[in-house]
Amino acid sequence: MTAYVAEGVERIRRESPLVHNVTNLVAMTLSANVLIAAGASPIMSAAPEEAGDLAAMSGALVVNIGTLTAPWIAGARAAVEGARGARRPWVLDPVGVGATAFRRETAVALVALQPRIIRGNASEILALAVGGVAGKGVDSTAGTMDASDAARALAARTGAVVAVTGAVDLVTDGTRTLAVANGHELLTRTTASGCALTALIGAWAATLQDPLAATAGALAAYGIAAERAAARAQGCGSFVAALLDALGELDGATAATLARIT
Amino acid sequence: MTAYVAEGVERIRRESPLVHNVTNLVAMTLSANVLIAAGASPIMSAAPEEAGDLAAMSGALVVNIGTLTAPWIAGARAAVEGARGARRPWVLDPVGVGATAFRRETAVALVALQPRIIRGNASEILALAVGGVAGKGVDSTAGTMDASDAARALAARTGAVVAVTGAVDLVTDGTRTLAVANGHELLTRTTASGCALTALIGAWAATLQDPLAATAGALAAYGIAAERAAARAQGCGSFVAALLDALGELDGATAATLARIT
Amino acid sequence: MTAYVAEGVERIRRESPLVHNVTNLVAMTLSANVLIAAGASPIMSAAPEEAGDLAAMSGALVVNIGTLTAPWIAGARAAVEGARGARRPWVLDPVGVGATAFRRETAVALVALQPRIIRGNASEILALAVGGVAGKGVDSTAGTMDASDAARALAARTGAVVAVTGAVDLVTDGTRTLAVANGHELLTRTTASGCALTALIGAWAATLQDPLAATAGALAAYGIAAERAAARAQGCGSFVAALLDALGELDGATAATLARIT
Repeated sequence: MTAYVAEGVERIRRESPLVHNVTNLVAMTLSANVLIAAGASPIMSAAPEEAGDLAAMSGALVVNIGTLTAPWIAGARAAVEGARGARRPWVLDPVGVGATAFRRETAVALVALQPRIIRGNASEILALAVGGVAGKGVDSTAGTMDASDAARALAARTGAVVAVTGAVDLVTDGTRTLAVANGHELLTRTTASGCALTALIGAWAATLQDPLAATAGALAAYGIAAERAAARAQGCGSFVAALLDALGELDGATAATLARIT
Repeated sequence: MTAYVAEGVERIRRESPLVHNVTNLVAMTLSANVLIAAGASPIMSAAPEEAGDLAAMSGALVVNIGTLTAPWIAGARAAVEGARGARRPWVLDPVGVGATAFRRETAVALVALQPRIIRGNASEILALAVGGVAGKGVDSTAGTMDASDAARALAARTGAVVAVTGAVDLVTDGTRTLAVANGHELLTRTTASGCALTALIGAWAATLQDPLAATAGALAAYGIAAERAAARAQGCGSFVAALLDALGELDGATAATLARIT
Repeated sequence: MTAYVAEGVERIRRESPLVHNVTNLVAMTLSANVLIAAGASPIMSAAPEEAGDLAAMSGALVVNIGTLTAPWIAGARAAVEGARGARRPWVLDPVGVGATAFRRETAVALVALQPRIIRGNASEILALAVGGVAGKGVDSTAGTMDASDAARALAARTGAVVAVTGAVDLVTDGTRTLAVANGHELLTRTTASGCALTALIGAWAATLQDPLAATAGALAAYGIAAERAAARAQGCGSFVAALLDALGELDGATAATLARIT
């Protein structure tokens, strides 16, 4: 049942898909290092002059609104157009979407451009589903289960696979829903760990055909790496390096054994 | 006498204040991780479209001019207006203020918008106090004590609490002056460690009423974490993770015991 | 024969040259920390209002096109003008130059402004030499030796020292060519490790007169630190901190002993 977890881990390492990231300023370095640790090849650019070209030559595009600005929005739109023109999947991370009207409007406009996958915490998915509930900053104040109906409705309405990450992650395409129970609390104490996970989903979306399996596989692989990293880390600081170490050494068989996807 | 150190450490962890950062590109990730390690909830945005809203909903705002640009200045101004409108304290870090006319003019204009707290190294506070002494880049070429008169004058003139950080830190509101002797030399070998300290001061300013106590408490907590991190680190690289680990595990009683505030 | 390696390591620590960086968003923090670990003093700014002033007051300028935008290009040009006006050396890192027309045109225009040193991977130097071969993203798909003729031609045409980094690095001024065999595979699994190396070359260029020796010395010192870091690291994540630790403790005698420059 989790054969695709092994397949995804191994194929990303073997095929090294190029993943284009139009992402936020806090998440750039960690996102790039997570992609490299998993075996993918990251590129980062939000320049409208080239973001479309880069997205079109990449296996997938990741758009993250974490530190959005007007020029960044132009770059994100160019990238999405490039990805769609080349029929590449793109993944949306609506960071802090409930916090301001600026984020809400930007996220709603991006959702209309048909992301293959949307990943957020419960507050973000709740806000996105109804188009306006205010969250507190970028950290979730709601539980994953609170957002399950919203996630299913958002998936059904948009055609995207929707992932709600938290203590247990939910992944749904509106009809099928998976739960992924891997992960560790230290992820919540690392800035941009969710953003970097979305980048990793991009690598999986570039590699596996089925977006539901790709998303669940990425969540499981990242969560397993977090569990193993937590066992070695001294705290929230050393956890980051340990997470990359663990992701870098993860093989397909181990991932399939440890994945808790139901 | 240092009861407020224990109170600050514990209350930040319990209340998790939202701290909005309009900061520089080098400092973003470390600042966010320092805030999270201490128990606060960071948000980062310099977009004029939302910076005011974010500052108004946050417990405090931190403005750091480290990699300023014209659009960034517009975002910083919007954020400061939002903070002032909502009567939230804001903290200014005038990185490299003596280095160029662009930084000097920007910092002087920001000081006129009444920050509650200003933190810099000796060169920066000296430059800011007289409005123009050139420093060498962003690292201090003057000692903390050289800047004590300048700090007091700046505090008296602006109404802000002024912190000069160095081997021994000074904190003054123009009449009362405290010295904080915690810290470690490895902080000077970590980029953006001063900027991240300013972000932490933001969390303290959001939590404790008295800006002098808040600033001294933040300096002591950060310095204690640095001392403990240095004992575990192998050098300037591993020090960063160890600093976050130490900050993440610091409790109020330990902080009050180890604080060297006079 | 490698006396300049010892001299460079020691003088950078003693003289602490200011190095101005107009660099990409992914590389900022690591570049600054590499410069600090080696003993230099980094400053980062791409604001046209001040980049020229900062470059003119610095010992060297480093320009890296990794996340270029139109405003960034204006800042880079101002910085290069400042460096040239003050007769300071400047170093170009043409990240991903073959990937898009935007990068190609920007890099070609920058090369015309006479960098003292150009560092790239084989794909980048090949693309720059002919002005247009497409590479795959920012990672090299060609070997160092494939690019040796291109490097020599580029050096001869531009007057710059050209470094091609890979398993074995090549450094050439068009007539003399050195090979530097230090380094470790984990560098390829760390984002921005090449960008940070270019920043380090800036510190060496600010310190040693001969750009060929400065470049080879920087490559050797960085490669030695990587070798020692790899022996301590648990994987690609812990390698980053170990690299900074190793760079921070490297002394001139050790560097001269371990350098493999031929």
